[in-house]
Amino acid sequence: MLANFLPCIDWMRTYNSRTLTDDLVAAVIVTIMLVPQSLAYALLAGVPAEVGLYASMMPLVLYTVFGSSRTLAVGPVAVASLMTASSIGSLGLETADQYLQAAMVLAMLSGLFLLALGILRFGFLANFLSHPVVSGFITASGIIIALSQTRHILGISGGGDNLPELIGTMLENLGSTNTSTFAVGIFALGFLTVARVWLKKWLSMMRVPDFMAGVITKAAPVMAVIITIIWADVASLGEQNVALVGMIPAGLPSLMIPALDVGLVRELMLPAILISVIGYVESISVGKTLAAKRRQKINQNQELIGLGTANIASALSGGFPVTGGFSRSVVNFDAGAQTPAAGFFTAIGIAIATLTLTDYLALLPKATLAATIIVAVLGLVDFSILKKTWNYSRNDFIAVAVTIGVTLISGVEIGVSTGVFASLVLHLYKTSRPHIAEVGEIKGTKHFRNIKRHKVETSPSVLSLRVDESLYFANASYLEEEIFRNLSERKNLKHIVLMCTAVNEIDISALEVLESINEILKEQGIGFHLSEVKGPVMDHLENTHFLHSLNGQVFLSQYQAVQSLALEDTLLSL
Amino acid sequence: MLANFLPCIDWMRTYNSRTLTDDLVAAVIVTIMLVPQSLAYALLAGVPAEVGLYASMMPLVLYTVFGSSRTLAVGPVAVASLMTASSIGSLGLETADQYLQAAMVLAMLSGLFLLALGILRFGFLANFLSHPVVSGFITASGIIIALSQTRHILGISGGGDNLPELIGTMLENLGSTNTSTFAVGIFALGFLTVARVWLKKWLSMMRVPDFMAGVITKAAPVMAVIITIIWADVASLGEQNVALVGMIPAGLPSLMIPALDVGLVRELMLPAILISVIGYVESISVGKTLAAKRRQKINQNQELIGLGTANIASALSGGFPVTGGFSRSVVNFDAGAQTPAAGFFTAIGIAIATLTLTDYLALLPKATLAATIIVAVLGLVDFSILKKTWNYSRNDFIAVAVTIGVTLISGVEIGVSTGVFASLVLHLYKTSRPHIAEVGEIKGTKHFRNIKRHKVETSPSVLSLRVDESLYFANASYLEEEIFRNLSERKNLKHIVLMCTAVNEIDISALEVLESINEILKEQGIGFHLSEVKGPVMDHLENTHFLHSLNGQVFLSQYQAVQSLALEDTLLSL
Repeated sequence: MLANFLPCIDWMRTYNSRTLTDDLVAAVIVTIMLVPQSLAYALLAGVPAEVGLYASMMPLVLYTVFGSSRTLAVGPVAVASLMTASSIGSLGLETADQYLQAAMVLAMLSGLFLLALGILRFGFLANFLSHPVVSGFITASGIIIALSQTRHILGISGGGDNLPELIGTMLENLGSTNTSTFAVGIFALGFLTVARVWLKKWLSMMRVPDFMAGVITKAAPVMAVIITIIWADVASLGEQNVALVGMIPAGLPSLMIPALDVGLVRELMLPAILISVIGYVESISVGKTLAAKRRQKINQNQELIGLGTANIASALSGGFPVTGGFSRSVVNFDAGAQTPAAGFFTAIGIAIATLTLTDYLALLPKATLAATIIVAVLGLVDFSILKKTWNYSRNDFIAVAVTIGVTLISGVEIGVSTGVFASLVLHLYKTSRPHIAEVGEIKGTKHFRNIKRHKVETSPSVLSLRVDESLYFANASYLEEEIFRNLSERKNLKHIVLMCTAVNEIDISALEVLESINEILKEQGIGFHLSEVKGPVMDHLENTHFLHSLNGQVFLSQYQAVQSLALEDTLLSL
Repeated sequence: MLANFLPCIDWMRTYNSRTLTDDLVAAVIVTIMLVPQSLAYALLAGVPAEVGLYASMMPLVLYTVFGSSRTLAVGPVAVASLMTASSIGSLGLETADQYLQAAMVLAMLSGLFLLALGILRFGFLANFLSHPVVSGFITASGIIIALSQTRHILGISGGGDNLPELIGTMLENLGSTNTSTFAVGIFALGFLTVARVWLKKWLSMMRVPDFMAGVITKAAPVMAVIITIIWADVASLGEQNVALVGMIPAGLPSLMIPALDVGLVRELMLPAILISVIGYVESISVGKTLAAKRRQKINQNQELIGLGTANIASALSGGFPVTGGFSRSVVNFDAGAQTPAAGFFTAIGIAIATLTLTDYLALLPKATLAATIIVAVLGLVDFSILKKTWNYSRNDFIAVAVTIGVTLISGVEIGVSTGVFASLVLHLYKTSRPHIAEVGEIKGTKHFRNIKRHKVETSPSVLSLRVDESLYFANASYLEEEIFRNLSERKNLKHIVLMCTAVNEIDISALEVLESINEILKEQGIGFHLSEVKGPVMDHLENTHFLHSLNGQVFLSQYQAVQSLALEDTLLSL
C-alpha cells in the first residue's frame, strides 16, 4: 500500500551488493558529467555558479524517494534554465540577490504545481503538448541557448531571450571582443566538438573497450574544465579581463524558505506552470523510453510527485528549477544504473565536489562553460521534424513551424504557449469540418465504403452518408449544410441514412441540429435514418424525444438499412 | 456575379408593387415597435436617447444592401447594449462625450471585425459557440439586464454589471426611492405585463382578427409611452425629480468619424470581438429559423458582411453596436416583410420619428423605458436548458451551468469567454480519454460489437479493440496505456487488432505512439494489426514507414482480420 506513494520501497526490497556496485559506478560517471553541467546551467539561468551545485543535491535525494523512473537523472537542464532566465529577466529586478530569490520562488511554484497535478492525478494534462510542438520548441530553444552563450565565448556583454534581441546586442558589442576570452572559448569549443564527433571513434580504433571509450568521451567537458583552469592559473587570465567563475562559497547549502512575495508569485505563476509542464514532458518522455528498454513502467502521476518534491527541495536548498535531463539520463542508464539510488549517490558526489573543488573552480573561465552548453544544446537542434511533418500532415507541420518561428522571434514562453494553442486550434478546426463520405456496398460483401474510393453499388432513392467525426457544437451546422447540399443535387431521393460508425458523441447542440434536419426532411417527405449507432451514443439519444420524432428508423447495420429501405420502395411501387 | 457580393440585386429583380405593399406594412409595425426600443436600449447602453434612434437608421440601410436574410430586423438589441455598457463602464471615462465616443469606437471595431471575418470566410468560427453556452449566456444576461433596470423603476442611483454589484448598490439606495418614479414604473410594468400575457387573448375573444390583435399587442409599449408622456406633462413629473428622457436634438445624425485613440482601441478590442460574435450568433440563429420557414437560405459569410457594414454605418452616424434582434425580426416576419427593403422603410420611419417626435419624447419618463426593457428581457430568461442538458449529457450541463454562474457573478464578458473555454476544454477532455471497446462478432452476422453490450464470439488468441475516437496527441498515450493494460490481463494472446472504424485522423504524435506499441508487441511476439482503416487515414499512413515495419497486416474488414488470424493459428498449431 505504502509502496503506491513511495516507489522506493519497491526497489529497496531487492537491493543487494550487485545493484549497489552498478549504481555506484553510474553515480561516479554522472557526477563527473554533472559538475561542469550544473555550473554551466547556473550561468545560463543567470544565477551564481554554486546554485547549480545546490540544485544537484537535495532534488536528487527527493527524486530517489518519490520518483517512479529507475534511471532518470534529475538536476539542472538547458531548456528549464533558459526559461528561468527568460522569465526572471523580464521582471526587471535590481540586485543579484533578488534575482536568486526569484529563481527559488520559481522552483517552489513549479514544485507545488507539479505536486498538485500529481496528487490530483492530472498527469494527462501533459498529453495536450503534442510531439511536434515539443520537438519544435526544443529545437528553437537550442538555437536561442547556443546564441545566448556565444557572447561568453566572445567575452562581450549582451542579452535578450529571442533571436532578434540576441543577434542585435551581439552585433552591437562585437567590437569589444576580448581576445583572451575568445582564445579560451574557441579552444574549448574545438576540444569538445572533436571529442563529441571523433573521440569515441578514435578510441575504438585504438581498441579501447566500448564502455571505457564512452566514459572517456563523456568526461571530455571535465577535461576541458581542467585544462582551462590550469590555463587561467598559468596565464593569469583573470588579469586580462577574462570572466572567471570566481569565488564559490565552500560548504553545503543551508535550508531556507524563499520569501514568497505576493506580487512576485503572481508574476511568476504562469512561467512556473510553463517550466513545469515543459520539464515534465521532457522528463517523462526520456523516462518512458528508458523504462521501455528494460520493461519497466513509469507512473505519470507518481512522476509528477517525484519532480514536484525535487523542485520544492531545490527551492528550499537555494536552487532553481530542475527536471529529468535527456543526455544525463541516457548516460546514467548506459553506465548501468539499476535504481534511483544512483541519483542519491550522485548527490553525495556533488556534495563532495562542492566541499573540495571550489578553490579550483573559482579559476574556471566562463567561456569554457559556455562552450559546454553550446556543444550540448546543438545536439538538441533537429529540424528533421519539419520535413517529417510536412510529408505526413499539413496540420502537424503548421504546429511545428509556428512553435519554432514564434519561439525564435518572441522567446520561449510565448513560443510554447502559441504552439500548444495552435495545435489545439488546428485540431478543433479539423474536427469542425469533418470528412463526410457518400457510401455504397462493395458488391456482395455487406461492406459500405466511400463511393469515390471503391467500386460500390448505390440505390438512387437512398443516400447513405458516413460522417467521419463525432457530432458536436463546432461541426453541427457544417453537417447540416452538407446534408442539404447533397440533397439539392439529388432528384427522386426518398431516404437519407446517416451511417454513424465514426460518431462517438452527439452533444446537445448537434442533437438540436439533427432535430431540425429531421423536421425539414419530414416536410419534404424524405425519410431520415441512422445506422450503426454506437452503444454510448444510443444511451444518450434514448433519453430524448429525438428517436420518437425521427422520420425513419435506427438500423443496427448499414446493410440492413439499405436492404430494408430498398424492399420498402419495391413494395410501394408495386 | 455581382449578386454574390450584393444580395440585394437578387431580390430587387423581382420587386413589384405587391412586395412593396407587404414591406411597407411590416415597416410601419416595426417602426412603432422600434421607437421605444431604440430609446430604451440606448438607456441600457448608457448613451443619450437619440443615439438609439441614430443606430436604427443607417445600419438598417446598409443591411438592406449587404445582408443575406430577407427578414432580419437589425438595430439596437438588449444583450449587445448590456455588453456595450459593461465594457465601456469598466474604462472609467469621465465625460458623457468620451463615453459616447467609446461606444462609437466599439461599433466601428465590431463592424470591422465582422466584415473581416466575412471577407476571410471565417463564419465557421461562430460554430465554436455551442448552443448551451449561448442559451445560458442569454438567460444570465436577461437577469442582469432586468436587475440593472430596476433602479430606473425605483428612481434610485446605482450600477454594476454583475449580480452582487447590482444587488449591493440597489439595497444601499433603496431608502431614496422616488415615489412618483416608482408609480410610473409600476404602472408601465403592469400595463406591459398585462398586454403581453392577456391582451391578445382578450382581443381574440372580442373577435378582433388575429393579425390586428398581434399589431395591437406589439404596439403596447408605444401606448405605455404615450400614456406616461401625457402623465408626465399633466402631473409635471419633471418637477418631482422623475428622470425624463429630456431634450433630444431634432434632426438626422451627421456623418462623423469616431476618434480612434490607440489606447482606447486596444482596450475595446476584446469587448468588440465578444459583442460581434455574440451578436452574430444571436442574429444568424434567428435568421436561419425564419429563412427555413420560407425555404430561403442564409449565407453565413454574407451575413457577417451585412452585420459588419451595419455596425460601421452605426459608428459613422453616431450610433452604437447593433445586430439582428430576435423579437423584432419575428414581428417583421409575421407582419409580412418580403425583402430587406422593409428594413430600409423602417429606417425612413425612424427618421420621420426623429424629425417630428422629439418634443414629445423629451417628456418620456425613463421608468417607462426601463419597464419596456424588463418585460422584453424576462422573455429571454429560460432555465429549461439546465434541465434539458442535465438529462442529456453531463458535459453540456456543466458548460451551461458554468456560463450562467460566471456571467451572473462576474459579468457578461468573463461569463461568455469562460463558457466558450469550458465547452472546448470539456470536449477536449472527453476526446483525450476515448471509449475503447473490446469487440466480438455477433454470431453469423460478420458484425463486430462491444462484448459488454452484445452477445458476441471472440477468439482467445486475438484481442480486437475498437477505439472510438480519432487518435491525436491528446489521447495517444491513453491508448498506449489501455492496450498494455488489456495485454497484461491476457495470457496466450497472439494478435491485437485495432478496429479503426471511428478513427478519422492519426496525427504524427499518435503515429509515433503506434510505432512504439508496434515495437514492444514485436519484441513480445504479438502481432499488431489494423482493420477498417478509412481512406483519408490510410493515405497519410502510406507516406510513412509505419506500414512497412508493422508486425502484422492492415485488413479491409474486421471480419477478414479475425478469420485470417484464426486460420493462421490453426495452421500453425497443426
